[in-house]
Amino acid sequence: MSRHASEDRRWVMEPIGWLRSCYHEKFAVPRQPGLAPAATAQLVLVAPYNHPDCVAGLEAYSHLWLTFVFHQTQAQGWKPKVRPPRLGGNQKVGVFASRSTFRPNGLGLSVVRLERIEQGEKLVLHLSGVDLIDGTPILDIKPYLPWSDAHPEAQAAWAPNAPTSLAVRFSLSVQAQLAVHPEGAWLEQLLIQVLSQDPKPAYQKPQPERLYGVALAQHNVRFRYLNAETLEIVELQPLD
Amino acid sequence: MSRHASEDRRWVMEPIGWLRSCYHEKFAVPRQPGLAPAATAQLVLVAPYNHPDCVAGLEAYSHLWLTFVFHQTQAQGWKPKVRPPRLGGNQKVGVFASRSTFRPNGLGLSVVRLERIEQGEKLVLHLSGVDLIDGTPILDIKPYLPWSDAHPEAQAAWAPNAPTSLAVRFSLSVQAQLAVHPEGAWLEQLLIQVLSQDPKPAYQKPQPERLYGVALAQHNVRFRYLNAETLEIVELQPLD
Repeated sequence: MSRHASEDRRWVMEPIGWLRSCYHEKFAVPRQPGLAPAATAQLVLVAPYNHPDCVAGLEAYSHLWLTFVFHQTQAQGWKPKVRPPRLGGNQKVGVFASRSTFRPNGLGLSVVRLERIEQGEKLVLHLSGVDLIDGTPILDIKPYLPWSDAHPEAQAAWAPNAPTSLAVRFSLSVQAQLAVHPEGAWLEQLLIQVLSQDPKPAYQKPQPERLYGVALAQHNVRFRYLNAETLEIVELQPLD
Repeated sequence: MSRHASEDRRWVMEPIGWLRSCYHEKFAVPRQPGLAPAATAQLVLVAPYNHPDCVAGLEAYSHLWLTFVFHQTQAQGWKPKVRPPRLGGNQKVGVFASRSTFRPNGLGLSVVRLERIEQGEKLVLHLSGVDLIDGTPILDIKPYLPWSDAHPEAQAAWAPNAPTSLAVRFSLSVQAQLAVHPEGAWLEQLLIQVLSQDPKPAYQKPQPERLYGVALAQHNVRFRYLNAETLEIVELQPLD
């Protein structure tokens, strides 16, 4: 445990799989997993980790831990203090007192629901309640053990509860689009669950004239804030 | 997400700190954290992660996640299937359906209690309910958020409950030692909590004539099984 030892030791990690997700960018991803149950994803395992033996018995678990790399921000390094969005974006806490993506080693941790295991040409875990963006490299999968991992009594000073949510409305044209979309019912749920989390930075005042945009589940989604409690989705365009 | 991409990407991780723990070997370490609350440990942060700013606000949390490397077994690699001790050691499940230490990337995950933060010459987190051995390299600390991390409803097929525990007795000579030991009361609790978990492999039948030994909190502990439900600590010798 000498200083020398700590400088000598390095561990090289490689992905056991990659995530395909409805989220294409960090903006609008819920700040914790589980806030948008309709947020589905597929974890595609890669060789040599894609042997069916590796997931034998996994179907018995409803929830899994994913350890992953914040690959979009990892190269940007870290700072000792960060501004968590839940504190309005203008108060700082230590990086280890936050779940910030800008952190030493760039490691992320998420609990997700396991929906089913696909064992065809590829070994794919179908997940829901995911808060990870498309292309996230996964380093490990562990079963969630409630008697060990669930501590509802744990104290958390700030962010003790889930954030309050906005009402989400759809313009008439978007309603018409969803009505004929093959996955319209799911897409409507996803849009409500994701955008009700209020994707804009907490310190920004909503401006009714401003149009926001986000790429979500093969669509460019345009929306605006009608007031502080209500958001309207005004346009839905397929991604290229 | 091509095969090529997965082969190209590697991430190098370095410890943000090292753990000093009462456990010196894997044998007898409880199979999940929290089973032995008296199991204390100190997480000593190393530069540049030992700046007080890095843990600002952390004292507000009662529980923390530690992401670490199973450094004693990491070099031994992994196999697609493992024999979890909770299944008696003779039934196999997939490595990703287990918390086995022999796993791809050798990553571990533990929830621990934060007792206090020492900010003197060194930056030290005092922890309890720890299931990690002395010298474990820590890669990340995250606050435990109950509204996101606690899922008491999660399903787990096997190992749904904490393991049953053994009764722990002390020989007369060990009782006499503990009575005069400066940390006797704590050591007694630690011995009861750790050894009541039944450290021997689940498939071994207890043999009254066999003496077991384990290094624990600066002591060599010798014990035996009086019967299937009771274990006796017969000797306590200081470690060198």
